[in-house]
Amino acid sequence: MATTVVESKEWYMAAYAPEGVLTSDHLKLRSVTLSLAGDSIPDGHAVIETLFISVDPYQRTRMTGMQDGLYFSQFNLDEVITASSIGRVIRSKDNNYKEGDIVLNPFSPIADYCVVPSKSLIRKIDSTSGVPLPDYLSSLGVPGFAAWVGIEVLGEPKAGSNVFVSAAAGAVGMYAGQLAKLKGCRVVGSTGSDEKVKIIKDDFGYDDAFNYKKETDLDATLRKYFPDGIDIYFDNVGGEMLEAVLNHVNKHARIPICGMISQYKKKWTDRDGVRNLLNIVGKEIRMEGFLVGSYLDRFGDFAKEMESYIKEGKISSKYTIYHGIESYLESLGSLFTSTNIGKVVIEFK
Amino acid sequence: MATTVVESKEWYMAAYAPEGVLTSDHLKLRSVTLSLAGDSIPDGHAVIETLFISVDPYQRTRMTGMQDGLYFSQFNLDEVITASSIGRVIRSKDNNYKEGDIVLNPFSPIADYCVVPSKSLIRKIDSTSGVPLPDYLSSLGVPGFAAWVGIEVLGEPKAGSNVFVSAAAGAVGMYAGQLAKLKGCRVVGSTGSDEKVKIIKDDFGYDDAFNYKKETDLDATLRKYFPDGIDIYFDNVGGEMLEAVLNHVNKHARIPICGMISQYKKKWTDRDGVRNLLNIVGKEIRMEGFLVGSYLDRFGDFAKEMESYIKEGKISSKYTIYHGIESYLESLGSLFTSTNIGKVVIEFK
Repeated sequence: MATTVVESKEWYMAAYAPEGVLTSDHLKLRSVTLSLAGDSIPDGHAVIETLFISVDPYQRTRMTGMQDGLYFSQFNLDEVITASSIGRVIRSKDNNYKEGDIVLNPFSPIADYCVVPSKSLIRKIDSTSGVPLPDYLSSLGVPGFAAWVGIEVLGEPKAGSNVFVSAAAGAVGMYAGQLAKLKGCRVVGSTGSDEKVKIIKDDFGYDDAFNYKKETDLDATLRKYFPDGIDIYFDNVGGEMLEAVLNHVNKHARIPICGMISQYKKKWTDRDGVRNLLNIVGKEIRMEGFLVGSYLDRFGDFAKEMESYIKEGKISSKYTIYHGIESYLESLGSLFTSTNIGKVVIEFK
Repeated sequence: MATTVVESKEWYMAAYAPEGVLTSDHLKLRSVTLSLAGDSIPDGHAVIETLFISVDPYQRTRMTGMQDGLYFSQFNLDEVITASSIGRVIRSKDNNYKEGDIVLNPFSPIADYCVVPSKSLIRKIDSTSGVPLPDYLSSLGVPGFAAWVGIEVLGEPKAGSNVFVSAAAGAVGMYAGQLAKLKGCRVVGSTGSDEKVKIIKDDFGYDDAFNYKKETDLDATLRKYFPDGIDIYFDNVGGEMLEAVLNHVNKHARIPICGMISQYKKKWTDRDGVRNLLNIVGKEIRMEGFLVGSYLDRFGDFAKEMESYIKEGKISSKYTIYHGIESYLESLGSLFTSTNIGKVVIEFK
């Protein structure tokens, strides 16, 4: 590759969105010129051409400007925002990486090209393995790992356990239910459309699923789907669904909390109050929030197990694919309108 | 003891109190006559003369008539209610017990005398050990054990951890803080009077304490007492204090929940909504309710540790003592008015 200069578009944080509703006032695209000349790349760095970017709900919590201690820190104004990416090395100043290597970067700039410290590349991908590249951002990436930590590490599933997964057609939810099924559990999911109810049952193999938007009384709904109560609730949504669940969990239930998407866009004093936490005492519930970054020592165990499931055809993935870096703002918005299915990624070429 | 008949007073559930405010309409005292003749006592049973009864907040949750799955089941109407007791065996049809033995019964009828299956007597007490009998209902009983489970099993204290205990002058709270101090933690407690603030600091050795009734902004209060955040919150109260705490806990904080006394008397839809549970995710908080009955396999470890602390003078106990079975209704009410200090017991003679 003889070019010594590339034009690269990148998304940056122009202004915070305290209400969480992001527009082109907050996220802006700009073009920059990167030099690929050898002496312009620092030692221990690599230049990456982005192939796929992961679009994740948590990113919105980094764009409100409110340092409320939730999740990660806020993006800095005027700086490029980041996401997990799959990319190709096009220049390298680290002997562990060479041109053409396919790499995973959990906090890559959302840009066509970027120069990054090679130690931020957590995985080199064998592109001849037959696993589709986006799987490394999905079943084998953060969503699959989050599902595994929640179900297998925190959920302690047993054969016959009753498992409920919210946002079950989403990137994490689709795997949470499948992993629980592989452990012999009975699994029911909730989602926001009839189309997704069908996918959850037909493609992800859940025992049952319902469209929460059509349910007027969540208490009655959960009583119907869980006549024997809930042993594990994999929570992706928080708010009123969590409140309803607390009335239907069994003694010693586990509630791994992966996210609370219903609560992201609100100031905390405006968020839904959960009124029945007293259940936590009497039912001896363990409720535990988690971020996958705290479980990296288990990533190897996860990857081994998940890869074997994938090779045995036991795990199904669905994608909503956007095309080109320009689609980032739209794709991020789609996460909060219940329109997408499975993992949302942007394909760059 | 030649008497073959005793008169015994006992408290029974005359009517439920759905609002949780118990009066003499709900709890009534009656006299019964018990035969002590040998052939009237079933094999494997003993007749116990009550010496001390434990008065506990959770009992009220068994008197509302609402089967909402919280804590234990409801007392049956017309049946005698129960509590932990220390008693003396006056007749025995079990070779393991003889007249004069001092025994602990975790679910004793609240009565002057009772006939119980001897397998319900979980501990024979060596009354020559020098430990005051009420300690077996307090530091060495359920309150001490609850404090130990919450702090040592679920709290994972480390030297220097910042620990907050609510209801810190109560039966459980007084031990929770002392146990945390013995592990090298910095401990602050909350309570409902200035007198109790002083006791918490002077008698229980907390580093600091405050009267929550004088604080108008719990958020500011916690910021002041925990400039470095809270690592362990031993929750006895729930409600708005729990909500405030969630804004001040550190990453990976543990919140063992022993009780939520602020929430007991309300219907769940009227209870305080906790609006900032989103903190659980971002801060990766583990919140876990517990009842000591699930940890009985650890009781031996607890008792050994606590007895050695008591012998070394490292644990201080305070009591509020009522006299005579007639005082039960009043003593139970006192738990909810913030008037008592330490463990509330009734001494029968």
